[in-house]
Amino acid sequence: MSKEVINLLFAIDDQFVWQMMTTLLSAKTNTPGRTIKAFVISKEPLEKERDLLRFGDSIDVEIEPIYVGTEAFEKAPVTKRWPESIYYRLLAHNYLPDNLSRILYLDADILVINDLSDLYDMDMKGHMYVASQHSAFQKFTDNINKVRLNNYDMNGYFNSGVILMDLNKKCEIVREEDIIEYISAHHRNLLLPDQDVLNGMYSQYTLSVPERIYNYDTRYPVYYEATTFGAFDLETVIQKTVILHFCGKEKPWFSGYTARFSALYKHYWFKAQHILETR
Amino acid sequence: MSKEVINLLFAIDDQFVWQMMTTLLSAKTNTPGRTIKAFVISKEPLEKERDLLRFGDSIDVEIEPIYVGTEAFEKAPVTKRWPESIYYRLLAHNYLPDNLSRILYLDADILVINDLSDLYDMDMKGHMYVASQHSAFQKFTDNINKVRLNNYDMNGYFNSGVILMDLNKKCEIVREEDIIEYISAHHRNLLLPDQDVLNGMYSQYTLSVPERIYNYDTRYPVYYEATTFGAFDLETVIQKTVILHFCGKEKPWFSGYTARFSALYKHYWFKAQHILETR
Repeated sequence: MSKEVINLLFAIDDQFVWQMMTTLLSAKTNTPGRTIKAFVISKEPLEKERDLLRFGDSIDVEIEPIYVGTEAFEKAPVTKRWPESIYYRLLAHNYLPDNLSRILYLDADILVINDLSDLYDMDMKGHMYVASQHSAFQKFTDNINKVRLNNYDMNGYFNSGVILMDLNKKCEIVREEDIIEYISAHHRNLLLPDQDVLNGMYSQYTLSVPERIYNYDTRYPVYYEATTFGAFDLETVIQKTVILHFCGKEKPWFSGYTARFSALYKHYWFKAQHILETR
Repeated sequence: MSKEVINLLFAIDDQFVWQMMTTLLSAKTNTPGRTIKAFVISKEPLEKERDLLRFGDSIDVEIEPIYVGTEAFEKAPVTKRWPESIYYRLLAHNYLPDNLSRILYLDADILVINDLSDLYDMDMKGHMYVASQHSAFQKFTDNINKVRLNNYDMNGYFNSGVILMDLNKKCEIVREEDIIEYISAHHRNLLLPDQDVLNGMYSQYTLSVPERIYNYDTRYPVYYEATTFGAFDLETVIQKTVILHFCGKEKPWFSGYTARFSALYKHYWFKAQHILETR
């Protein structure tokens, strides 16, 4: 499968265009020799769409905007805590071209610091999804989650920020009605909308990959170092980790953010802006 | 002058090949659209010369090794504290091609994080050198330096890690005999060999550029932020600073180094190694 196009999926609104450009620039820069194509799902055309497309041209990444339209999800439960956009990654297969068999969904608070190829090309062993479990300071244990999300086949609790998707499997397994029904039935127990649905409904279809490589929670460098008996120190992270995920409320694009990976993130952030300004 | 080749000069031994590759990769990556050529001065051919040339090919930078030979500087004062290599940058014009008019010397403990063009293309206003003064915690004041280095025309004390050189002026002004004579006469007062000679002999031929842009001492982020009343915070450094200089004994390629710019430096360090391993 090597050397095929790497398809990336983002689901953003106008507030996250610059962040997405940063993620995309980092993915392109650190995955040399691969063609990268990005599908960007939003409700309606983004105000900054022209900027985004121009940016894609500048870094040699084809960007294909996809609009779900204002009428989709009219009947789905939607509140402030449940914005419609949570459905986009869950139901991405309904909006993507039919000929696509695989895609990597990425949140826009992500920096790709090493080559994506090993993840993208991996043998999914018949699973629909590949994702990582965030183990540090997880709010509930697996057993509590099984009860809370009413899924006794649950195969761990996965973070929904990085999901490799087999789109053929997804077409077979994931149905919009099921998701709407599940949310209606369990909304009182759900805390992290898309992530809880992912785990409540599809955990057993998900293959686990190591979080410290593919979904490193940047809040917890000490945790990763301690749980590997010192092996996963900063040097190893920079050398081996593919995806840094800036989870939590403190975001690396905030001007006061000075945590461990701040300089690295901001470097790509300002490079992206500079590219947009000068080309 | 824009769009001409940017000529870089390094003076290293085999201990600094990987560091130099990191500096070079960062310079190339962050100065897009410019051709970069690197001259590397060493006493004899480097053991890792083939690696270095292969690396240059991989990142599209022409590397030209220059050997000063074992017989040069036979009569110059040389001790452990005064390795012969300190003469290389001082006398670079004797070893470089005649048709070269300008070159930027860089230490190998440097990371270039933004475009070098503004520095390289600047109007030197008739000066032989352009460099920056390191003001934070400088060991001596300007007046003490004037006495210590016996130069009452001294125009500030410049750091010798980043020097833009007008090679025509340098041929007019700098003579090997003068340098050897100066060192012989003043060696008791000299602490930082090449830097003291640069300042003791040529400070008045040197144009000053802001250190926080062109020679940012990574040990003192708090100093730069405080002396600009908060304006030069991390975000501004990443956006505006061109050259980070990892001065001092703690080096960013050490595995335990975790200071503010550690992740950024190591990112380029491992990218350089990866390029060498895979291409």
